[in-house]
Amino acid sequence: MHENKPPLVTNLRDPRFQALRNLQTSQGRSQTNLYLIEGIRHLARAVEERAPIESVFFDPSVLSNGFGRKLVRRMLQSHVPAIRLSPQLYRDLTLATEPQGVGAVLRQQYGLSQDFSRAGRKGTSSLVPKRADSSAASAAEGIYLALESIDSPGNLGTIIRTAEAAGVSGIFLLGSDDDPWHPAAVRASMGSLFSQTLVKCSAREFTGWARSSGIAAIAASPAGLLDYKAMRCRRPAVLLVGSEKRGLSGHLLEASDFTVRISMRGHCDSLNVAVATGVLLFDLSSKRE
Amino acid sequence: MHENKPPLVTNLRDPRFQALRNLQTSQGRSQTNLYLIEGIRHLARAVEERAPIESVFFDPSVLSNGFGRKLVRRMLQSHVPAIRLSPQLYRDLTLATEPQGVGAVLRQQYGLSQDFSRAGRKGTSSLVPKRADSSAASAAEGIYLALESIDSPGNLGTIIRTAEAAGVSGIFLLGSDDDPWHPAAVRASMGSLFSQTLVKCSAREFTGWARSSGIAAIAASPAGLLDYKAMRCRRPAVLLVGSEKRGLSGHLLEASDFTVRISMRGHCDSLNVAVATGVLLFDLSSKRE
Repeated sequence: MHENKPPLVTNLRDPRFQALRNLQTSQGRSQTNLYLIEGIRHLARAVEERAPIESVFFDPSVLSNGFGRKLVRRMLQSHVPAIRLSPQLYRDLTLATEPQGVGAVLRQQYGLSQDFSRAGRKGTSSLVPKRADSSAASAAEGIYLALESIDSPGNLGTIIRTAEAAGVSGIFLLGSDDDPWHPAAVRASMGSLFSQTLVKCSAREFTGWARSSGIAAIAASPAGLLDYKAMRCRRPAVLLVGSEKRGLSGHLLEASDFTVRISMRGHCDSLNVAVATGVLLFDLSSKRE
Repeated sequence: MHENKPPLVTNLRDPRFQALRNLQTSQGRSQTNLYLIEGIRHLARAVEERAPIESVFFDPSVLSNGFGRKLVRRMLQSHVPAIRLSPQLYRDLTLATEPQGVGAVLRQQYGLSQDFSRAGRKGTSSLVPKRADSSAASAAEGIYLALESIDSPGNLGTIIRTAEAAGVSGIFLLGSDDDPWHPAAVRASMGSLFSQTLVKCSAREFTGWARSSGIAAIAASPAGLLDYKAMRCRRPAVLLVGSEKRGLSGHLLEASDFTVRISMRGHCDSLNVAVATGVLLFDLSSKRE
């Protein structure tokens, strides 16, 4: 990595480092529409999914992995802006217990509900061109997910990862506070963030979309009328999941076609929200095969 | 709470506070066989499940909730040893972002595989008397869970919570490092720790138990031969789940009757371990109804 050695930043007050640290805050992310990723696996996945990488940062003293070094070399050759960080500064940017020494700044990307031009089919809007032909989209068309105010960013990221695995075609974020670019969400999503189409809109816009597209809205609720196992729905469907503490808001519950519950044994009255979403999405997806 | 006012501890070096703080470490827990719980919900659940509470601690300035205060009063009336902590000391013991001002020290409890005297039926051994008649045990007999070296205590706790909800009759912990009493595991288990029978034993003891009890051992593995949806198993069964990073050890994979996988879409090659366990347990449990 001797060719084109990027500048070394060692000072905490260096504006290039400050700009990175700013992305650890919610305000910094929303002002810039950027976010941070960290680790070789995440960076490799971002490259593979052609996510919009703005710049990379790395700590050469930690980045010993051959594949990781090759990845950085490739980015430098493609003229992606890069800086080197001192170990101390690098450590300040990572949530990992064993940091891998490389990370990147990416541009946040949201899609539009209109991109799902017909129920269960991806649109061809040029706004999200790379996703229109992604295998994630074509594999199990017709299942969507809508999230409202998931409190824990870790849970949000885990849900995004789970949704991709279950073949979800797109995820609506209905809470103004749902922040998929939070470092803990990014980390838990394990790269699924780069391939999923995320749509940020209000609850009313969402219910309008669902109605006009003829998509069945299935709300998950502990007070659901139907046990999810008894659920049969052949139409394209969107699963709605609400906050860990408060569940879905009244408006969304009322606007749904079905409310389903997961019947529980023992003295449990609830499941972790990511586990519950996984159980429901995989069940929905298996009933479509 | 003026009757029998418990002593107030304000000094960081006070041995009563040091004893509590010691339980935040793995060594402290294994030396004493005790662990900490925190929050009104957890304490109420511990009382309800008749978990062995050794002592309580609370911060009167934070414990404003009427139900929480009543709970503490009841414990004082039952002569459970108690101390009051200064806000500063209390904050040091909690993982909660909004601490509720009350916690307790509990005795760790493990069961024995012999307690599951016949496959799918609870024994009547006096070692775990309170659990022999618990509704969690009788609701869906015949599904067990075996965990090997789950890396994240939060995942371990979430799995214990999920297992109770899915009607699991007992959980084997096969890794020497599986610590269900870790504060993050306790917190994520949401009280299910108090009602589940946990058995700590070696992988060989476990496979001996499964074989002699005629229980089908189903190993979860990304390389599983069978998609879990195609799985049909009418015998009592135990689901085996391994570490997030390394999966199950070779010995356990070989000793299993089936290896099942969760087929994934998109570019996902794995799920969060708690989500995967939830999907598999709820599927197993639904196929038994």
